[in-house]
Amino acid sequence: MSSPALTSDTRIEPAILDDLPQLTDLVMSLLDEEQDFVPDRTKQQHGLKLILEQPNRGRIFVLRNDHSIIGMVNLLFTISTAEGGFVILMEDVIVHPMHRTQGYGSRLLSHAIEFAKEKQFKRITLLTDKISAESQRFFQKNGFQFSHMIPMRLIIGDVSK
Amino acid sequence: MSSPALTSDTRIEPAILDDLPQLTDLVMSLLDEEQDFVPDRTKQQHGLKLILEQPNRGRIFVLRNDHSIIGMVNLLFTISTAEGGFVILMEDVIVHPMHRTQGYGSRLLSHAIEFAKEKQFKRITLLTDKISAESQRFFQKNGFQFSHMIPMRLIIGDVSK
Repeated sequence: MSSPALTSDTRIEPAILDDLPQLTDLVMSLLDEEQDFVPDRTKQQHGLKLILEQPNRGRIFVLRNDHSIIGMVNLLFTISTAEGGFVILMEDVIVHPMHRTQGYGSRLLSHAIEFAKEKQFKRITLLTDKISAESQRFFQKNGFQFSHMIPMRLIIGDVSK
Repeated sequence: MSSPALTSDTRIEPAILDDLPQLTDLVMSLLDEEQDFVPDRTKQQHGLKLILEQPNRGRIFVLRNDHSIIGMVNLLFTISTAEGGFVILMEDVIVHPMHRTQGYGSRLLSHAIEFAKEKQFKRITLLTDKISAESQRFFQKNGFQFSHMIPMRLIIGDVSK
């Protein structure tokens, strides 16, 4: 209870276009921590903007107080032939480094799961960094399970450059 | 060259709604081979129909001859904040058991990669079964690389049942 005023002010809302600079900073900070990615402000901003402009493709929720964005979660919508309906890819689950270990990650995750249930999505899938045992424990604690699948990727070079 | 007439007739095309029963059979046969899934005709058919009806969400390509569908690949479209643009989730890469080891899988995969390049998608990601070394070699041969990520999933129970 070191900052009761801050805590009482926090709320989770869909992100808006005005949030783009802060969201970009958050995603860049996440990519900086992960092995497979190199941060690139132009790319992150463009990807986030595409999602904010096309709400049928996904929803970004932010946890904010009156001053700034504390955390975010990015829910992308796609279709599963295995589950027979719409499913969610959850990406960019990020809490600002200044605000960690205060339960904000769990609040964002609970909100995402409630949203998925309410909108009748069939499944939430996320890709977590293989190296980060802490991150895996966090998601396991919140009901996520490992699958028997392994992701493989083909990055497509930009032929226009 | 055991069946030159068959080979000369084969072509890759976007699937149409009339293909739904055969696509459903193919996806059910794939799920039957994988550890994480249980086939369910109603679910597979519903998921496939959703994709066929909403071409902005994805594209299913079939490799067919004049008689039947030999194979399929399901390309789902989403947005990556890491890549800064649209990316593809590739699922349901299936060749009918009667037509395997004849290069049809590679033809479908090449077609998918060409489609992704032409439409300027930034990346193709697939989840392959951890157990199947053969399947992993196939995708590696075609340029796909392992990432440092691990998928975790939360299946959302159907509260209406």
